[in-house]
Amino acid sequence: GYGRFGVGYVEDRTVGGTSDTVIVSRFRMNIDASAETDAGVKFSARVRMQADEDAASGEANAAGLNGARFSVEYGGLRVDVGNVAGAIDNLPNYYGNEPGLETFMGQYSGADYDFIGYSSGGAGVNGVYARYAVGDFAVAAAYDQAANGADGDRFDIHAAYTFGNITAALAYGETDNGAAADFDMTVLTLGGSWGAFSGTLIVGDESVAAVNESDTFYGISAAYDVSSATTLTFAYGDGSGDGDTRNIGLGVIHDLGGGVSLRGGIGESKTGNADGQMRADFGAQFSF
Amino acid sequence: GYGRFGVGYVEDRTVGGTSDTVIVSRFRMNIDASAETDAGVKFSARVRMQADEDAASGEANAAGLNGARFSVEYGGLRVDVGNVAGAIDNLPNYYGNEPGLETFMGQYSGADYDFIGYSSGGAGVNGVYARYAVGDFAVAAAYDQAANGADGDRFDIHAAYTFGNITAALAYGETDNGAAADFDMTVLTLGGSWGAFSGTLIVGDESVAAVNESDTFYGISAAYDVSSATTLTFAYGDGSGDGDTRNIGLGVIHDLGGGVSLRGGIGESKTGNADGQMRADFGAQFSF
Amino acid sequence: GYGRFGVGYVEDRTVGGTSDTVIVSRFRMNIDASAETDAGVKFSARVRMQADEDAASGEANAAGLNGARFSVEYGGLRVDVGNVAGAIDNLPNYYGNEPGLETFMGQYSGADYDFIGYSSGGAGVNGVYARYAVGDFAVAAAYDQAANGADGDRFDIHAAYTFGNITAALAYGETDNGAAADFDMTVLTLGGSWGAFSGTLIVGDESVAAVNESDTFYGISAAYDVSSATTLTFAYGDGSGDGDTRNIGLGVIHDLGGGVSLRGGIGESKTGNADGQMRADFGAQFSF
Repeated sequence: GYGRFGVGYVEDRTVGGTSDTVIVSRFRMNIDASAETDAGVKFSARVRMQADEDAASGEANAAGLNGARFSVEYGGLRVDVGNVAGAIDNLPNYYGNEPGLETFMGQYSGADYDFIGYSSGGAGVNGVYARYAVGDFAVAAAYDQAANGADGDRFDIHAAYTFGNITAALAYGETDNGAAADFDMTVLTLGGSWGAFSGTLIVGDESVAAVNESDTFYGISAAYDVSSATTLTFAYGDGSGDGDTRNIGLGVIHDLGGGVSLRGGIGESKTGNADGQMRADFGAQFSF
Repeated sequence: GYGRFGVGYVEDRTVGGTSDTVIVSRFRMNIDASAETDAGVKFSARVRMQADEDAASGEANAAGLNGARFSVEYGGLRVDVGNVAGAIDNLPNYYGNEPGLETFMGQYSGADYDFIGYSSGGAGVNGVYARYAVGDFAVAAAYDQAANGADGDRFDIHAAYTFGNITAALAYGETDNGAAADFDMTVLTLGGSWGAFSGTLIVGDESVAAVNESDTFYGISAAYDVSSATTLTFAYGDGSGDGDTRNIGLGVIHDLGGGVSLRGGIGESKTGNADGQMRADFGAQFSF
Repeated sequence: GYGRFGVGYVEDRTVGGTSDTVIVSRFRMNIDASAETDAGVKFSARVRMQADEDAASGEANAAGLNGARFSVEYGGLRVDVGNVAGAIDNLPNYYGNEPGLETFMGQYSGADYDFIGYSSGGAGVNGVYARYAVGDFAVAAAYDQAANGADGDRFDIHAAYTFGNITAALAYGETDNGAAADFDMTVLTLGGSWGAFSGTLIVGDESVAAVNESDTFYGISAAYDVSSATTLTFAYGDGSGDGDTRNIGLGVIHDLGGGVSLRGGIGESKTGNADGQMRADFGAQFSF
């Protein structure tokens, strides 16, 4: 897991009186357990303990536990059960580089489809995710049944291929809304690295409840090592709809060794024609 | 602790729309701490972290922590304080073999008395349990005071004796309901093993709030190792009252080594003259 | 962390029917994680898992997690962020010797100012605490912003100096109540040890919401090792106001080795002219 803390600025943070600049923090510890059969099949489970600040009040939240994820791994096959991340959540280069201590800006900002995602703070889904990798090629699929037999069963799939220093990946996800129109997302990502530079690209099409958030979304991100210890990150994301949110962010990571780094970022989030909202933060992060 | 996950079928699971077949899972991790005095008295404490599926909605629950249990052990004496299991909950062969990944059928199905029990998901009781074992003989007693000075103080006691490959145990528990009639339970268990076969037997008498659940209850369970890796389990339980629940179940455990096993079961639970409810499940369990 | 359990007596515990004597317990486990930079700066984080009895109902509570505290340490400097203890909470000899398994009596009983304190059971504050120590001298300061931009921002500072076997410390804390009168506390402590005897002294002045709790408070505590394994503790505290609470307590700690001790105490808590309330407890505590 990791810990991070620092100060975070959000322009006009709340309508109430909370200061725009508050102490931000996260403590994340993965509690893992595993066993392996005589034939080499690995079974494992994970529960995450996490504490975050409350961004609205400026206070901190007590730590909590999330839903458990169970995994079976054998060779190139992996099956997750429970609080799983789906095939889009696990899509290579979907998130790309996210500037800021809090990784508050991302190339995916124009994507609004609610795919099967891992929950760090709650129970999450009770689904199944399977991934099979052979050499440079991998395929994955996930399925999640809605609660109480309601509409909203979801599935998603992806395929990824790595050639040289480039990885291309394609995913599709769909939510079955019964008699109402289904939601879906198709997304293509590209990611590559060339020495000190690495970059990602995302482009996709979606159909969600809000008409002005549907249609195309796209984004790019990049990272550049300006020295052996310092990396600059950049992200840009937007969508074709009036309701889509545009993100532009620039960040810096300075490695102090031992798994500790100083991180900060600045960026703007802007939805449609509304005023943009500036964000900035700075702090330390350490892995353990 | 252990993790287990798989699929579980419950006939007519809910009146609502949840599928009869859902993903079932449990992640249980015991968090133990201990210290030992110079004289060799061991002090310890345990809190359990557990996550389960929500059987009604088909979703999963976030992990939670239960109430702490404190223990003192010295020679054959053990005293537990806090979230304790009482003398019936700890009675040898009370639970017997419980078929199924979820151990959903048991020989005790006709027993309805609410004895002092360990809680994996909540605070549990704030009681005391003591057990003293010398050679093949053991006695135990537990006491739990009701909350806020209300009626409902409970105690239970047991004695167990092992001769050769057979263990016989007798327990008695009582709940003091003040001016109202007290509840009580007397239960005798027998358990033995002969090579690949082992079996348990339970018979008892109880007086509880529901008249049609009082009087006699009884059950048997068995396990048979059909090979070095595969064990069949069986359980049958019922009671003399119209409101008692009958359980019949058959299960299989296939050991994969390394603490991992495949488990499944099928059974029927039937209360009085109501329609029986079929259950079945299958999945993997691993210990750590 | 540590575990402790035993029986606790509180005279007229509740208006309801809970027994004056109940099982008391605490299980406290610190979950720590840390990393160190190449330059030797230590980053760490702590979340505490704790379970306590419910003193009112006589039952136990399930274990819970508190808010995270993050720390940076380098040489004599330490900075805490998040769920911090402030400069009064960390003031040397502020708490002194607290008799009883439950440390239920203290020399600080006449102090009512609500300073920045570490929370073991909840989220706590989201503040900053810094301490710098050089040789026998140390200074500290803490700041906490009120939630949602409300009034109530707090800060406190302290300075401590150790000469020979005596430590003297002075602290000041203030709460900014906006248009209303501010609250504040000034407190001086002395602590020293001479062979088998150690003692502490506290005296201060405060201004809080309740007029009859404001003005002077004072107290002393002592510990005396009557043998290599047995220590007697004493505490007395009171204040000049009619609403201040007087504590008098006597305790004993008997060390069993291996981090295990038997502990007990007896004392009286009395507020103003109201009837005093006797308390007593006895039990075991073990560290791990």
